[in-house]
Amino acid sequence: MKKLAVVGATGLVGQELLALLKSDPKTSALKIDLFASQNYPDQKVLALDENWERLREADVIFNMASSETAQALREKKNPQQIVIDNSSAFRMDPEVPLVVPEINSELLAAKPKYIANPNCTTILLTLPLQVLKPLGLKRVIVATYQSASGAGKEGLEELRRQASGDDGGDYPVFGFPLHQNILSHNSRVRPEGQVGSGYNEEEWKVIEETRKILQIRHLPVSATCMRVPTERAHVEAVTVDLEENISLAEIRDLFLKAPGIRVVDNWTKNHFPMPLEAQKQGDVLVGRLRLDSGSDQTLHFILAGDQLLKGAALNAYQIYLAYLKYDNQNAS
Amino acid sequence: MKKLAVVGATGLVGQELLALLKSDPKTSALKIDLFASQNYPDQKVLALDENWERLREADVIFNMASSETAQALREKKNPQQIVIDNSSAFRMDPEVPLVVPEINSELLAAKPKYIANPNCTTILLTLPLQVLKPLGLKRVIVATYQSASGAGKEGLEELRRQASGDDGGDYPVFGFPLHQNILSHNSRVRPEGQVGSGYNEEEWKVIEETRKILQIRHLPVSATCMRVPTERAHVEAVTVDLEENISLAEIRDLFLKAPGIRVVDNWTKNHFPMPLEAQKQGDVLVGRLRLDSGSDQTLHFILAGDQLLKGAALNAYQIYLAYLKYDNQNAS
Repeated sequence: MKKLAVVGATGLVGQELLALLKSDPKTSALKIDLFASQNYPDQKVLALDENWERLREADVIFNMASSETAQALREKKNPQQIVIDNSSAFRMDPEVPLVVPEINSELLAAKPKYIANPNCTTILLTLPLQVLKPLGLKRVIVATYQSASGAGKEGLEELRRQASGDDGGDYPVFGFPLHQNILSHNSRVRPEGQVGSGYNEEEWKVIEETRKILQIRHLPVSATCMRVPTERAHVEAVTVDLEENISLAEIRDLFLKAPGIRVVDNWTKNHFPMPLEAQKQGDVLVGRLRLDSGSDQTLHFILAGDQLLKGAALNAYQIYLAYLKYDNQNAS
Repeated sequence: MKKLAVVGATGLVGQELLALLKSDPKTSALKIDLFASQNYPDQKVLALDENWERLREADVIFNMASSETAQALREKKNPQQIVIDNSSAFRMDPEVPLVVPEINSELLAAKPKYIANPNCTTILLTLPLQVLKPLGLKRVIVATYQSASGAGKEGLEELRRQASGDDGGDYPVFGFPLHQNILSHNSRVRPEGQVGSGYNEEEWKVIEETRKILQIRHLPVSATCMRVPTERAHVEAVTVDLEENISLAEIRDLFLKAPGIRVVDNWTKNHFPMPLEAQKQGDVLVGRLRLDSGSDQTLHFILAGDQLLKGAALNAYQIYLAYLKYDNQNAS
């Protein structure tokens, strides 16, 4: 796997992925072709539509672009090419593994040729849920505080224009002003008569993908996904009902040992997970750990994580590294 | 009740209350004395410490100041004076009615001399919960998105200083930057060994006061209270488990008829309750109504409400108006 390709290389997630690939000695010496919807000669980015043959030369393709691009990719790729797809196009396809390496990297042992990177909010949520899974997950309720950059460059720029007082009264990404405001997530609400009616598509991804990643098909999960006027990193307020009675000390200990999680839970200093400390970090910050005042089988906590990194580019990159490990094991 | 007094007249809530008193023909002609911690001669505000005798002339005292002031007031007031207290000092006192007029104004029929105005987040939450109460409240889980002005003028100014790039690295109100950030609520976390350990005081108010207002002593309520970088109005994401199977049409109908609530729930336009539309409004906006995907006994919704108005000054004013009604009934 000597040649990589990044599709959607000019987007926020594409840029984060490139930074990861270039900074890690494992990948910095590899040939990396960059693709986007159009040519950017100064950035050595090729228009995908005109360069499918070039794309077919890569061993591994990272799709950091849209679901439409993912559909085209899956049709046109060579059978031996490996795709790590950040779009939602095939996440719920039973034949496509949906991977958070800390949780289910063993799915890569079968060397699948198409791997889905989960939704950002879902990745951040499943890390602590996986830690709690041995205690018996009975029900999960989450409310999110999602930043503008979760809607890409356009979302980030829309918020910044408003903050600078220059929005022109036009909100193509969020529909309403996000500056000084809190909005229901900008994805479509599923209409009456459809499964998941009343949930928006972001919430529905959290619900379905969480079940798939944790391999608990009927786990009761509910989400309320909201946009807040922050630039980067998401926060989630989580309630988990468990089968077993728990102690806070035991839970804290489990989180302290968990890969990909950093506990930030200083009660006396009111120091808890927050976007300004989560951004540009690989770990998910977890804190405000407390038992329900009425039940020792219910845990409440909050988390903060960089949705562009662990929620997207870093998780995709970790999938690649985990894949390499399995590939090398087979080769040796 | 011809003479009113407002203590804490220079604070954000005091100012909102004054605006209400002066704009309503029922009260605009009354004599209203203003008190604060110090004299403001230009605003005709008297220092409370030097003017207790003057305060004792009022028929009704609104305390929009601190719990410490409330303690002093309760000791020093004349027995016939009526106090409507926005502080948390006596809210959980079994002898003090905790009133949201749409829910329990009948508590005023006994003509209590001391009445508590609930916590802002609690008032906004109890309005829709009261509507759902006939369906059997089994459990309530809420995550909040609370604006900077909930921490008073100082909180609002701290956020504004940061937004203008002039914070000096000092965050006396919130402890950490709130601009571009999401913070756990700035109240103290209840220490280990105490009832409600791990909850912060704001969350604990929501839990205890909700039970008292709804008169369901052991109702399972849990709250996660967070600060968001907005200036005014709070948002809450609410999950309610009910005893009965419900239909969305039935719930929407109940909310449409409920006093103090305005339904904002346009699925196709993604138009839902938001701070910019809730601020300076008396009603609580309710929307994102949906049944849990796994249970017809669970409702999810969000609300947005002006915490300075219905969450504080307006509710206090409505208590006064409801009291007047009972007073006039007895007189006639």
